[in-house]
Amino acid sequence: MKTPTLVQPFEWRDNTLVLLDQTRLPAAEVYLTLTDYKQVATAIKTLQVRGAPAIGVAGGYGVALGALQMKAKTRPAFLAHLHEVCLTLAGTRPTARNLFWAIERVEKAAHAPENIEEIRKAVIDEAVAIHAEEVEATRLLSRHGARLIKKGMTILTHCNTGPLAAPGWGTALGVIIYAHCQGKKVHVYADETRPLLQGARLTTWELMKAGVLVTLITDSMAGSFLGRGKIDCVIVGADTIAANGDTANKIGTYGVAVLAKENGVPFYVAAPTSTIDMRLKSGDDIIIEQRRPEEVTHFGGVATAPEGVSVANPAFDVTPARYITAFVTEKGIMRKPYARSIREELS
Amino acid sequence: MKTPTLVQPFEWRDNTLVLLDQTRLPAAEVYLTLTDYKQVATAIKTLQVRGAPAIGVAGGYGVALGALQMKAKTRPAFLAHLHEVCLTLAGTRPTARNLFWAIERVEKAAHAPENIEEIRKAVIDEAVAIHAEEVEATRLLSRHGARLIKKGMTILTHCNTGPLAAPGWGTALGVIIYAHCQGKKVHVYADETRPLLQGARLTTWELMKAGVLVTLITDSMAGSFLGRGKIDCVIVGADTIAANGDTANKIGTYGVAVLAKENGVPFYVAAPTSTIDMRLKSGDDIIIEQRRPEEVTHFGGVATAPEGVSVANPAFDVTPARYITAFVTEKGIMRKPYARSIREELS
Repeated sequence: MKTPTLVQPFEWRDNTLVLLDQTRLPAAEVYLTLTDYKQVATAIKTLQVRGAPAIGVAGGYGVALGALQMKAKTRPAFLAHLHEVCLTLAGTRPTARNLFWAIERVEKAAHAPENIEEIRKAVIDEAVAIHAEEVEATRLLSRHGARLIKKGMTILTHCNTGPLAAPGWGTALGVIIYAHCQGKKVHVYADETRPLLQGARLTTWELMKAGVLVTLITDSMAGSFLGRGKIDCVIVGADTIAANGDTANKIGTYGVAVLAKENGVPFYVAAPTSTIDMRLKSGDDIIIEQRRPEEVTHFGGVATAPEGVSVANPAFDVTPARYITAFVTEKGIMRKPYARSIREELS
Repeated sequence: MKTPTLVQPFEWRDNTLVLLDQTRLPAAEVYLTLTDYKQVATAIKTLQVRGAPAIGVAGGYGVALGALQMKAKTRPAFLAHLHEVCLTLAGTRPTARNLFWAIERVEKAAHAPENIEEIRKAVIDEAVAIHAEEVEATRLLSRHGARLIKKGMTILTHCNTGPLAAPGWGTALGVIIYAHCQGKKVHVYADETRPLLQGARLTTWELMKAGVLVTLITDSMAGSFLGRGKIDCVIVGADTIAANGDTANKIGTYGVAVLAKENGVPFYVAAPTSTIDMRLKSGDDIIIEQRRPEEVTHFGGVATAPEGVSVANPAFDVTPARYITAFVTEKGIMRKPYARSIREELS
């Protein structure tokens, strides 16, 4: 099997977080060195780092930076301040399950040691461990998922789910890149993914780096290619998966899922189990982030719609579990009924 | 009933065609004065005028300008040159049925008179007549279609189908504006319509001028709003309708139609009968225009995708007749089976 070229969106280096600024891609590869947890919060809010697993890893490192910054002298004061840091980081974006999962894990690790230096070390170690585990999870899930991909398949994907979004191999793109490295000669149609064009800017860039054949289309073209029998399967990532399998992902995913079903095309969701939230019974419980109207009305600072027009800008939608042919996680491939397969996989 | 504010995209004035440049909207209202049929061909190609019925009217006036320009002294030479003009105009865009229909009508009118001055007059008269008939057709179809709209409905539309696209009232937007003028207080979700943003730039602008409540969304959001029961009906226009009711319209229309069907929402197509081409048995016979990759990879001259990325850019898709709840034309509302209702309506 070939070894792929995988982008590294993060590095924890000398107690700083070095981060590839995704808003500048593909025009420029700019690395930011963050030393303050508030910089991490801003990076998450402004999508300098995005993709649910990547946001989780960044959130963990954000708590680590917070622990390094804190001056509190007593354990209770330190933990209280750390909790404030966690709240700030968790308040950045509401729909990425992995963010809350990572922050909770790191905060929990902080409570084990007795003295402040050990707490600091525990926090950093946990953030680093999460990063390493997530990298390994994407490798495993990519390998599992590649079993679903046959030689010469044409695959549609939506938004960005490569190493930028999910450190290591990526999720949906990880599966595709893995299959490519196995010599399966796949062809990918990448939805551009309005409003922020993660597909046009990032997915094409990552696939071209990895040597995978990719064709860029607008979101509105996906249906046409599915309807004309040009697509063999669809693979996307996930921002939150509820206990019944209902899945929140980038706005437009639900539409692709319905169009896949209508045309008898399998629709796969690839995500590490850190994306699953068992406290959410169904998609109805998932909070959908609403973003600024300017993302829709402007482009590169230039207005493309009349001034004062009313806009809706939900960043995600929910695909009911019934449209999902299978889930791919680091533990394997999950089939229906998902309420049971998810419960079994997490136990 | 209220009188609406309807934009006038064309005027035939002193043997010139005055045309509102749609590529400059909504930032600027720029009127072009065209005196050469080649300018009309360019205006159609570059989408300074767009929308199937509007392209038809422009094509008719283009032939009229050609007739005014020609120096040929004999009837056969004049008609031969006029045929060249018609071929140039018909070669601009392949999918708008109304363009070929209008050009054929004007050219046919040119063959009746005996002398050149009378031919010139016949050509101009026919072009003016087509314009007037299309304006009246949109008024009638808007009135018919408004019967489908109930008070307080929320309506989804795709691309631009107002007076800019179909002189007079428009087609799908004509129906909406008519219902609004009847006091039905409708709310419109307008798909932005990538790649060229006719929805964001033109539909919102026309609806705001007409006083209709409109919310702009990206194309990828339409599914989410349909799936969450926020849409009562969908109305779109058409670029070509085949004899069996299969309909070519702006890329993305098929996806909206499938999502409407999946959610039990009526899907209407509004178009004058000049959009129907009885020579096409089904959608398989419709030629789909492929446009430049830069429309997808660039925005306002700025690259938004990596250099050298492969792109697909079909401008239209075909919605099979089975997804269409009804057609609205100037003659009334057509129901299934369309092979019969279309034949009856045209006879």
